[in-house]
Amino acid sequence: MAKKTAKETTPKKATLNPADRKTLNALVQMANEVVTTADRGRAPALDIPSRSLSNVRYNKAKRFIEMGSSTNRRELFNLSQAKVYMQTLLVGSGCKQLIEEGKTTSIRGLFYLLKHTIEGCREETFNDQSECDPVIEDVEVSLNALREELHVYASNRGSMAGNIILNSIGDEIDCSRMGSGGYSIPSIVEPEELEFVKCDAKFVLHVEKDTVWRRFNEDKFWREHNCILTHGGGQPPRGVRRLLHRLHEELKLPIYCLLDNDPWGYYIYSVLKQGSINLAYESKRMAIPDARYIGLRSKDYERCGLTPSVIINLSDADIKRAKQIAQYPWFENKKAWQKEIELMLKNGFKLEVEALINKGISYVTETYVPERLEEEDFLD
Amino acid sequence: MAKKTAKETTPKKATLNPADRKTLNALVQMANEVVTTADRGRAPALDIPSRSLSNVRYNKAKRFIEMGSSTNRRELFNLSQAKVYMQTLLVGSGCKQLIEEGKTTSIRGLFYLLKHTIEGCREETFNDQSECDPVIEDVEVSLNALREELHVYASNRGSMAGNIILNSIGDEIDCSRMGSGGYSIPSIVEPEELEFVKCDAKFVLHVEKDTVWRRFNEDKFWREHNCILTHGGGQPPRGVRRLLHRLHEELKLPIYCLLDNDPWGYYIYSVLKQGSINLAYESKRMAIPDARYIGLRSKDYERCGLTPSVIINLSDADIKRAKQIAQYPWFENKKAWQKEIELMLKNGFKLEVEALINKGISYVTETYVPERLEEEDFLD
Repeated sequence: MAKKTAKETTPKKATLNPADRKTLNALVQMANEVVTTADRGRAPALDIPSRSLSNVRYNKAKRFIEMGSSTNRRELFNLSQAKVYMQTLLVGSGCKQLIEEGKTTSIRGLFYLLKHTIEGCREETFNDQSECDPVIEDVEVSLNALREELHVYASNRGSMAGNIILNSIGDEIDCSRMGSGGYSIPSIVEPEELEFVKCDAKFVLHVEKDTVWRRFNEDKFWREHNCILTHGGGQPPRGVRRLLHRLHEELKLPIYCLLDNDPWGYYIYSVLKQGSINLAYESKRMAIPDARYIGLRSKDYERCGLTPSVIINLSDADIKRAKQIAQYPWFENKKAWQKEIELMLKNGFKLEVEALINKGISYVTETYVPERLEEEDFLD
Repeated sequence: MAKKTAKETTPKKATLNPADRKTLNALVQMANEVVTTADRGRAPALDIPSRSLSNVRYNKAKRFIEMGSSTNRRELFNLSQAKVYMQTLLVGSGCKQLIEEGKTTSIRGLFYLLKHTIEGCREETFNDQSECDPVIEDVEVSLNALREELHVYASNRGSMAGNIILNSIGDEIDCSRMGSGGYSIPSIVEPEELEFVKCDAKFVLHVEKDTVWRRFNEDKFWREHNCILTHGGGQPPRGVRRLLHRLHEELKLPIYCLLDNDPWGYYIYSVLKQGSINLAYESKRMAIPDARYIGLRSKDYERCGLTPSVIINLSDADIKRAKQIAQYPWFENKKAWQKEIELMLKNGFKLEVEALINKGISYVTETYVPERLEEEDFLD
């Protein structure tokens, strides 16, 4: 059986696009600095921007969460830092290999690619995935490169349909002709992988769940209202956030979000709009400060004349979470949001988008959203 | 604001296809029986096929799990059964409404559609989703109709790429031109919604996870090997199972499964092949008794020359689960499967598909799967 392993794949060098060359240069630069430092007889070290909460702040001018300038020094000749120092360079070398071969992999794949027993000892490079993940984030933030630019991706989730034509690695994809399933939004949607060929749509309606998305797609809402319809399967994954950001920035499309009237829905909106604390270093390429919240609203129970049977009482955790969200710096000074959250707390219940079915199967697509668009009744 | 609600959607009758007419007839029949019984002065009752474990068996001739013939009687004039009796008819009426309007909804949507306070009392039709879900299953099994035929769907998950052209509700979808994201497999893939227009592919390679799927898609495996590539995001949802079943039954394509070498991977294979105990009544339209397991195998650690760093030790739960699976009636008499599971237990470790990256980023697509296909080394 041993001969089989001789068939192992011989890595081929891929032709690099400008974005790949830029990322590759940054990776090589990181490695070169080790050599330079060593040549000067100094101890090799890396300065990694700190991802702790204390180094994250809301930038009022840019209107998104960003990282501060604190860094943590990581030294090779420091017993408590040597392992993570080496792990950092190892992740860098793995990403270099991926880019050079023109391939991408998951964070799981990168972990397996790099995991091995260090020669001459019993020490593993990584004991488990959880040891590898933060190091990937360290490399991202150090190089100011998105994970996707390092050729590493997360699971994909989310679909799109509407009046837009894309080019995905050479295939032209007409999102107005994708049937009931829609276009599956990939994890990597950088311009080199996904081009906007032609777009007639005037806005994007982003809904929380695939089940709601399907209602809008089945009713051909995007055709009647000339828009693009997306969902992110709950909290949208990086690919969906990045794509929405690109649709807004490059095609100047307004982004309207239809989410549940509960703290989780508010939080999804907050992340789409201002970025997240965990991924603050990516805000400038993912956050959409101009996104608008179209509903559901706390006043919808009255406004739409819903029956008591569709309400869900707030749990203690919901109440606590809602109060936290009300105190977010970007909601703090917004009267409309304060009123919105106050009313939910006063109501004592939350409402899912699906609850609108109470008024008719297509009430949400034929009445609710069209009325909000006509009235321009959004939360900022 | 009250006038707003006047804009409520007026349900339109849809044109029904033959499958819809059949399901609708069955629903009307169910309701008619209530009237007939009442006319005869008898107490209305429904006989619901029993979905308990004791009424599920493995059919050796058909090679899948099926339901027995036990039924449970559900009576209106029985204090402990009256509510669930009425719920059953209510779900039936909700499905009738969906079919007549030509619309589909999620199980969540159906729940909201039907949830209301019963007039003249404080009783709710359903208190929560968990009260509604088993009733949906009761209606499915009573009418011998798939949930999808009742116009109700689960979340969708899973993607497809390869040499096949589909027609999804009027849109022609060429799965060989879907870019990096692939075609998002919808939850409802019945022939009325999804037609096979043209298929050049010779087989289907079904992989467990989207991250593995992406490796194969990126390497254009399906182009080189003229196949269709699918994944189900773990345990495949109903839509993916039903689609694989249709690809096998209607297009006679062999289905090869590439899953992790662990009890969970074995179980996914078991469900794809023989059906599941929970959904035994759907086996005949979902199970694929001819499916083949292409790997990973317990012998792969040796066969592929993997390093110790990629192994994951079996947990106690894994060991227990593996022993249970070995005793499944459909594995019990299969020597190769018994050997496979024994070897995993003897190894004391499991292997994920991603572990093959240890041999090179594209080892799995360029060496592992092509070799298994060439050797025809599958488990049945």
